Amino acid sequence: MCELLGMSANVPTDICFSFTGLMQRGGRTGPHRDGWGIAFYEGKGVREFRDPDPSCDSEIARLVQNYPIKSRIVISHIRQANAGRVCLENTHPFMRELWGRYWTFAHNGQLPGIRSKTLEHYVPVGTTDSEHAFCWLLDQIRERFPKPPKRQTTLWRFIHQCCEQLRELGVYNMLLSDSRSLICYCSTKLYWVTRRAPFTTAKLKDADVTIDFRQETSLQDIVSVIATEPLTHDEEWQRIKTGELQVFKRGQPC
Amino acid sequence: MCELLGMSANVPTDICFSFTGLMQRGGRTGPHRDGWGIAFYEGKGVREFRDPDPSCDSEIARLVQNYPIKSRIVISHIRQANAGRVCLENTHPFMRELWGRYWTFAHNGQLPGIRSKTLEHYVPVGTTDSEHAFCWLLDQIRERFPKPPKRQTTLWRFIHQCCEQLRELGVYNMLLSDSRSLICYCSTKLYWVTRRAPFTTAKLKDADVTIDFRQETSLQDIVSVIATEPLTHDEEWQRIKTGELQVFKRGQPC
Repeated sequence: MCELLGMSANVPTDICFSFTGLMQRGGRTGPHRDGWGIAFYEGKGVREFRDPDPSCDSEIARLVQNYPIKSRIVISHIRQANAGRVCLENTHPFMRELWGRYWTFAHNGQLPGIRSKTLEHYVPVGTTDSEHAFCWLLDQIRERFPKPPKRQTTLWRFIHQCCEQLRELGVYNMLLSDSRSLICYCSTKLYWVTRRAPFTTAKLKDADVTIDFRQETSLQDIVSVIATEPLTHDEEWQRIKTGELQVFKRGQPC
Repeated sequence: MCELLGMSANVPTDICFSFTGLMQRGGRTGPHRDGWGIAFYEGKGVREFRDPDPSCDSEIARLVQNYPIKSRIVISHIRQANAGRVCLENTHPFMRELWGRYWTFAHNGQLPGIRSKTLEHYVPVGTTDSEHAFCWLLDQIRERFPKPPKRQTTLWRFIHQCCEQLRELGVYNMLLSDSRSLICYCSTKLYWVTRRAPFTTAKLKDADVTIDFRQETSLQDIVSVIATEPLTHDEEWQRIKTGELQVFKRGQPC
C-alpha cells in the first residue's frame, strides 16, 4: 500500500508542514520506502519532484520540505511497491495532457485485472496497475468529452462513474487534478481537514513538529488537506465514505 | 532567444559541470532571465526540474548544480521570453507521452505563423510557439507511425522532414528525446563535443570552474554535450550545419 497527500487552497500555499509528516512515513515511521513524488500546480503549469529512493533519505525531498513552494493544488504520494518494480517511471504522481491541461494522478490500492481494460490514446510508460488505471480513466474522459463539458459537475459525475468501475477491480483510492480542482475518490481510506480562521495550532503525528497556523496564514486563507491517514493530532479529520467522490476547489469541498 | 543544453552518455553521468556553465547565462553572463528547466532520463522515467525564475537565482537550480543526478540523456533550456509570457507552463523542456515513452523537447528560435499548423491529438498548455511546434511534431509522428517503426533511422528521417518544415517558419534549433536517443536539429546555432579517453581538463567560459575529467570518469565513458554556444575553452566543439539532424546514442553521434 501507499500513502496519498493532497492539498487545495484559495491562495498559493506551501505544503511544507504536511509534507514533513508524510515523508517520515517513507521509511521512518512507515514502510513506504519505494519512492515518492509530488506535483505542484502553479496556474496551468506543474512542477514535479520524484525519486525512487525513500523520501526520508532523499536530498530532493529535503529541498521540497525546506523550500516553500507555493501552490493552490498539490498531489503527493509515497510508495510501497506491490505491482511494478521500484524505478523512476513507476513513481506517482503520473501526468498526461488532455484539452490543453496537465492532469496529475496518484493512487493507493491494488487493481488486479486492470490490464483487461484496453487503452486507446494514453499508454503507460511504467508497469504499475495505477498508471494503467490513469491511462484508462483519461481515455474514457477523452472519448466521452472530446471537448471539456460546460459544467464541471458533469465532468465530476462522469469521473465518479469511472472510479466506481475501477473500484470493482480492487482497492482504488485516488487523487486527481486537471489544474482546476482536486478530485478525490475513496475506496477504503481517505481523510480530509479544512483549515480556516480562526486558526489554531496542530502537531504532526509522525514528527515532533508543531505549527501555529496563526503565524503562517492570513484571515482569508482556506486550505484543505487530504491524506490516507490523518497527519495531525488536535484536528478533526473527516473520513470520505467508500464509493464517495469529494471535489475540492479553492480550498473548500464542493 | 534561448539557450539549449543536451547530453548523451553511455553510462549514467551527471551534468553538474555543464549545467553550472549554462545557469550563469540565466541572468548573470547572459540575458536569459525568464525561466529554465531540465529533464533527466533514468531508464524510461524522467525527472524534471523547472522554474520561471532566473536560473542564476534559483534554489532549485542550485540543487541540480550541486546534487549529482546521473542520467544517460539530459535536455535543458534557459529562456529569454519572446513569444508567451513568463510563467511555469511556458518553461521548456515540454513533455508528452507517445507509444508508452516520454518525449521531451526544448527549442531555441521563433516560429511566427506556427499556429496555422492545426493540432489533433496534442494540445499546448502554455502559449509559446515552441510548445505548439512540439505538439504538431508529435501529432505528425503519431499519425505517420501509429506504432513505432522497426528501424530507428526511419523515425529519424521522418523527424528530419518535419523539422525542415518547421524551419521554413523561422528559426528552429531543437533538442528532442524519446528516452532512447537524443535528436538535435540545427537551424542557426548548435554545437557539440564528445568526451572520451584519453580525458583531459576543460575550463568553463561562464564561470571560474575547471574540471579534470580524468578524476571524474572511467576509461570506458563516452559523453557528448550539445549546446547553443560552446561551454568550454580548450575543447573543440563541432558545429551542426543548418538543416542538419544529428542524433546521439550512448554518448556518440550516430
